[in-house]
Amino acid sequence: VSVRAGIVVTGTEVLTGRVSDRNGPWLADRLHELGVELALTVIVGDRPQDMRSALRFMADERIDLVLTSGGLGPTADDLTAEVVGGFQGREMVLDEQLQEQIAEILRPLAKRWPNLDQEAIRHGNRKQATIPAGATVLAPVGTAPGLVVPPRDGEGPTIVVLPGPPRELQPMWTRAVEDGALSEALKGAISYRQRMLRLFGIPESEIAETLRVAEREGVELSSLEVTTCLKRGEIEVVTRYEPSAEQAYEALASLVRARHGDTLFSEDGSSVDEQVAALLRGRRPAGAPGSDGDGASGPTRSIATAESCTGGLLAARLTELAGSSEYFKGSIVAYSNEAKVALAGVPARLIEAQGAVSGEVAEALADGARTRLDADVGVGVTGIAGPGGGTEEKPVGLVCLSVVSGAGEPLTRSVHLPGGRADVRDRATTVAMHMIRRSLLAS
Amino acid sequence: VSVRAGIVVTGTEVLTGRVSDRNGPWLADRLHELGVELALTVIVGDRPQDMRSALRFMADERIDLVLTSGGLGPTADDLTAEVVGGFQGREMVLDEQLQEQIAEILRPLAKRWPNLDQEAIRHGNRKQATIPAGATVLAPVGTAPGLVVPPRDGEGPTIVVLPGPPRELQPMWTRAVEDGALSEALKGAISYRQRMLRLFGIPESEIAETLRVAEREGVELSSLEVTTCLKRGEIEVVTRYEPSAEQAYEALASLVRARHGDTLFSEDGSSVDEQVAALLRGRRPAGAPGSDGDGASGPTRSIATAESCTGGLLAARLTELAGSSEYFKGSIVAYSNEAKVALAGVPARLIEAQGAVSGEVAEALADGARTRLDADVGVGVTGIAGPGGGTEEKPVGLVCLSVVSGAGEPLTRSVHLPGGRADVRDRATTVAMHMIRRSLLAS
Repeated sequence: VSVRAGIVVTGTEVLTGRVSDRNGPWLADRLHELGVELALTVIVGDRPQDMRSALRFMADERIDLVLTSGGLGPTADDLTAEVVGGFQGREMVLDEQLQEQIAEILRPLAKRWPNLDQEAIRHGNRKQATIPAGATVLAPVGTAPGLVVPPRDGEGPTIVVLPGPPRELQPMWTRAVEDGALSEALKGAISYRQRMLRLFGIPESEIAETLRVAEREGVELSSLEVTTCLKRGEIEVVTRYEPSAEQAYEALASLVRARHGDTLFSEDGSSVDEQVAALLRGRRPAGAPGSDGDGASGPTRSIATAESCTGGLLAARLTELAGSSEYFKGSIVAYSNEAKVALAGVPARLIEAQGAVSGEVAEALADGARTRLDADVGVGVTGIAGPGGGTEEKPVGLVCLSVVSGAGEPLTRSVHLPGGRADVRDRATTVAMHMIRRSLLAS
Repeated sequence: VSVRAGIVVTGTEVLTGRVSDRNGPWLADRLHELGVELALTVIVGDRPQDMRSALRFMADERIDLVLTSGGLGPTADDLTAEVVGGFQGREMVLDEQLQEQIAEILRPLAKRWPNLDQEAIRHGNRKQATIPAGATVLAPVGTAPGLVVPPRDGEGPTIVVLPGPPRELQPMWTRAVEDGALSEALKGAISYRQRMLRLFGIPESEIAETLRVAEREGVELSSLEVTTCLKRGEIEVVTRYEPSAEQAYEALASLVRARHGDTLFSEDGSSVDEQVAALLRGRRPAGAPGSDGDGASGPTRSIATAESCTGGLLAARLTELAGSSEYFKGSIVAYSNEAKVALAGVPARLIEAQGAVSGEVAEALADGARTRLDADVGVGVTGIAGPGGGTEEKPVGLVCLSVVSGAGEPLTRSVHLPGGRADVRDRATTVAMHMIRRSLLAS
């Protein structure tokens, strides 16, 4: 038997979408690493009856382990501990040692914000230290303690109560796993393997077809849980399986390699961003198909961009990873034509003759970035993000991109990207990243 | 009686966190506008039994209206229509008119990807056109039709089946509301009002204290549903109430204005991005406190940035809104010191004397952006995003920002921002936006 888990996210601001939930996805990954299957996530507001219903639902679905996030603050609308205690049939009791521990944490805060209401703080402290009898306390990272609350009669789920802020929840969870506070609840978890293939430049239906071919060719798909999804213009194929199904996975991966070799760019889940970073550092990325993964090292190559429609997003993406200053020189965001001429050195007559959105101008931008920022590789992007500015000949979504380096011909492409302004801008950065990757692999 | 709604999001990739759900939050907002209360959201994987359980849970909770997203694709693992049909006790039937409509949509795709398997396409087409008997079809935006599936015997929820991709779901929902396909299901919705106050530069606990003061001063808080949340470094106070509670809301808003006048920047929910855009267009933003909302128009002012640690994110943020080319000239992303000198004209000796992260260099960057990009307003940002590069004197999270314009003194600030690399970069753009706003309001 494997362990089935459920997540209950509480908070009206999450339910109504004003804050997006970062805890559910993070916990899903952690559960997976522990071999626990996440079956359901429920998001409820701050109403106790809705939270009770969610717990009842989890119990009815025979969930073994419920994780809750949120509702542990010092104010009256933070009700999780009390609701969970009631659900598990446990009385609420004041834990005096915990009360003192929280008071200790609050002392420096009182100094930093001297005008805070001391009575309110004491009240909140007492509330946060009142917990279901028999629960295990997970030491606070902020001011809120977490709780492991087992069922009173051994029937039904164990409930792990965690705080809402990710920066509190994450270290608390990690510590609870390490120090064994969850070991009873995690007994019986099967360890699954998970592998990810990434492809760029084909429609999702082609992968569906490959899965049908795999079935016809006798690949044991029933032992694999395959999900495909489209994300930022790339296709991710994630396969989860018990260790005994390794051969079936290898057969599937070979088929994908044989049918989609030209669009498969990652076999180890590495992103194009990580591969571009490795290539700029002079390393061959281990996850790229055909890589022998020896990590042979060449010289670092530097990069610079000149962007119009992406407005700085490509530069922001190239500097997202720590340590990017080793290879990223800078970017010229040339939104106006004057800026394209003055800063990136695009000839004004080229813009006049070809239009600002053209392969020629993309190449001139790439050249300008490379020269002006003294980089080995230059990237140029120009396009029409919309919603205005499109014409019949050059519609919204048309983006021209170019990558130039000292070695070889420039790589220049025009693409027509679907979606609204934000989609076009985001997709254009993905296309640029793949062109950079291709150009670096070739040289 | 009001209408209670629930959302069922399907998709293993959403449940496991590989794709974040954008539909739930968007639908929550739309439901709210229609006066429908969202009580619960459930996220399940692609397993039919889990989806059935989620629908059963919604029915048990006396939900009147269930919206599902996802699982409408052409492949066998897309099971939503069938599961919903079964749940509502309705047979699945092939809708031939719909089949032809989808075939029509697919024809141009076959031209674009000529190697696609035609048999697979026909198979998917037939599957997507097979729907519960008696359901109302919502015309496809992509290839998947939506469905409104009422309960067969009048008892239990109406289920609205929507596609997963936001770009399909959103126009489909809007059209369904407009053309009355949902009017039966929405009967009896109470219209609530919702107002948002936005503040920048105080801790959330101060708002909690103001709510306690409001209670003591006799503001009728029980008629207001107030939620506060911290988002990208700003505090949002959202209040939802029935029209009869308008006076109570006004009393609360006055109290916030009186106690937090210096940090309250928006009374109509407008974002700092929208206010900066209005100010650059020469208009006084209607939502800014003290604005008479007459929209008096001055000349457009142009803006340019020179960024280091934000790596283009500030430029990307300033160009997020459509029409930003009217006032945004461009940006110099000067990641290396050479680029700061060569492109933004920062004196090399200034970097040597003060360090690249200093108020002086931020001001020189702002000046350089303004001069080199021929803009009215220049913004400079330099800082240490981490995780490396911090020192005792200049720790990770230190960011120096400056806004210069022809009128008045430069506005220069150093802040110490919490969190990891991504947080510091994002927060720094928020601080910059507020400084730009302040500088534009003053001049």
